[in-house]
Amino acid sequence: MRLETAAFQGERGAFSEEAARRLLGRRVNVLPCQRFEELFRNLTEKKVQAAVVPIENTLAGSVHENYDHLLHHDLPIVAETSVRIVHNLIAPPGVPFRNIRRVFSHPVALNQCLNFFSSHPRVERISFYDTAGSVKMIMEEKPSDGAAIASELAAKIYGAHILKRGIEDDRQNFTRFFLLEPAGAKPRTIRGAGKRPWKTSLVFSIRNIPGALFRSLGALALRDINLVKIESRPLRGKPWEYLFYLDLWGHREDKVVRNALNHLGELADFLRVLGSYRAA
Amino acid sequence: MRLETAAFQGERGAFSEEAARRLLGRRVNVLPCQRFEELFRNLTEKKVQAAVVPIENTLAGSVHENYDHLLHHDLPIVAETSVRIVHNLIAPPGVPFRNIRRVFSHPVALNQCLNFFSSHPRVERISFYDTAGSVKMIMEEKPSDGAAIASELAAKIYGAHILKRGIEDDRQNFTRFFLLEPAGAKPRTIRGAGKRPWKTSLVFSIRNIPGALFRSLGALALRDINLVKIESRPLRGKPWEYLFYLDLWGHREDKVVRNALNHLGELADFLRVLGSYRAA
Repeated sequence: MRLETAAFQGERGAFSEEAARRLLGRRVNVLPCQRFEELFRNLTEKKVQAAVVPIENTLAGSVHENYDHLLHHDLPIVAETSVRIVHNLIAPPGVPFRNIRRVFSHPVALNQCLNFFSSHPRVERISFYDTAGSVKMIMEEKPSDGAAIASELAAKIYGAHILKRGIEDDRQNFTRFFLLEPAGAKPRTIRGAGKRPWKTSLVFSIRNIPGALFRSLGALALRDINLVKIESRPLRGKPWEYLFYLDLWGHREDKVVRNALNHLGELADFLRVLGSYRAA
Repeated sequence: MRLETAAFQGERGAFSEEAARRLLGRRVNVLPCQRFEELFRNLTEKKVQAAVVPIENTLAGSVHENYDHLLHHDLPIVAETSVRIVHNLIAPPGVPFRNIRRVFSHPVALNQCLNFFSSHPRVERISFYDTAGSVKMIMEEKPSDGAAIASELAAKIYGAHILKRGIEDDRQNFTRFFLLEPAGAKPRTIRGAGKRPWKTSLVFSIRNIPGALFRSLGALALRDINLVKIESRPLRGKPWEYLFYLDLWGHREDKVVRNALNHLGELADFLRVLGSYRAA
């Protein structure tokens, strides 16, 4: 059994840490990174054996920064998972709910708990750089009127108390995470991946000519390969041209997917497979 | 001639104000709004006659929040423009460059001037909520060591001094803006729009069935209608399903576009045209 460490972005207790434990087991060592750049650098330099990054949320959409990082690093996607985002109101032990006047969290989390704030108008929302980091801060500074919004894991790690569970407006709030490894790492068994179907993620760019995207999707559709997702990102240095990120059903080594990738390669200026992995 | 006011998000001097003046003339009245929600509400309630919103940047990508607002409001797109983002280092008059130790601006702007910061390591980057707002702040507080990064217009409006012009890393930095009006407003003449070709923006969703996106793009491609842009956004309440925003060449009243929209309507669960306007 190898002793391994997984990097994630955020403070201890972030939803990314929850995803890392789900993918690699509850006892995996973790390395929190302040920024995604740092996480990608740590994995590229093999200071860690794996990294877990959020790629999209069902309410907020894609994490575009990470699409850009995937393009610029050769770090294959080897697994995915999806974590339901449950926001909890968290305070230092002994601080009762009636004392709370200020709530700290990441702006995205604050915006996902608007019903809570409208039914408690006495409470002020204060933006903080991180959800779990806001729990860490209130446990260090112990404001008598302050609380944080974060995961249950964050409350546990910092020894804080959950005042209200599940205060998010929308329960259909999931974040999808990728597990990345250095290129050429030995294939691993992912917990619970079982025999779930394969997905493949890729990125390509096409010349700006009529029907180019239609023809590119045809390379898949005409082979009955199904698209899961398509995402466009601006192409740096070529204003108003785009890269496309695709997720499709199938493994890159399946014959039909291989043929489709060859066909797509004929149409694309640039094509790279980011990884094949079991669907979450 | 009607006396009109255009809303934009940000402080006076924001790049959005520059876009508004370019679209509506230098002397248009403007209403700065703190948040995009407020801007959309002001236009819906006809407190202003027009609003200007950023929709994508060639480096940072789409402004997804505004795609979501376009979906939820019936405020047609009547024009577009593209503004080159020139970042300037701005200080109160009399503060020389050698004194600058702290630079305030929106995090996106700070991140677009990394070469400047690496060649001046003595200068600290400090995140602020707005580019033009950072100029307003340094002119109010007059720190002896502080500067801001913002537009030339912001320097002019607040009477500040430009210490260095064009400190952005990448000159291919453009933001595309939409001009929105209340539904049913009288068509207007947009300055400089001349006889430039028409574009149409629309949003649709499709059932999650094999080849659905391919067939949808076929409704356009098989009629030789060219796609300018495609963007996906999560469909609220339906995890891992998406809405698609498309820009195509042509006017919604062109016969071929009308046919394509009818065809797309047969395939889509939902389809709405957001507007036809002259290309920038």
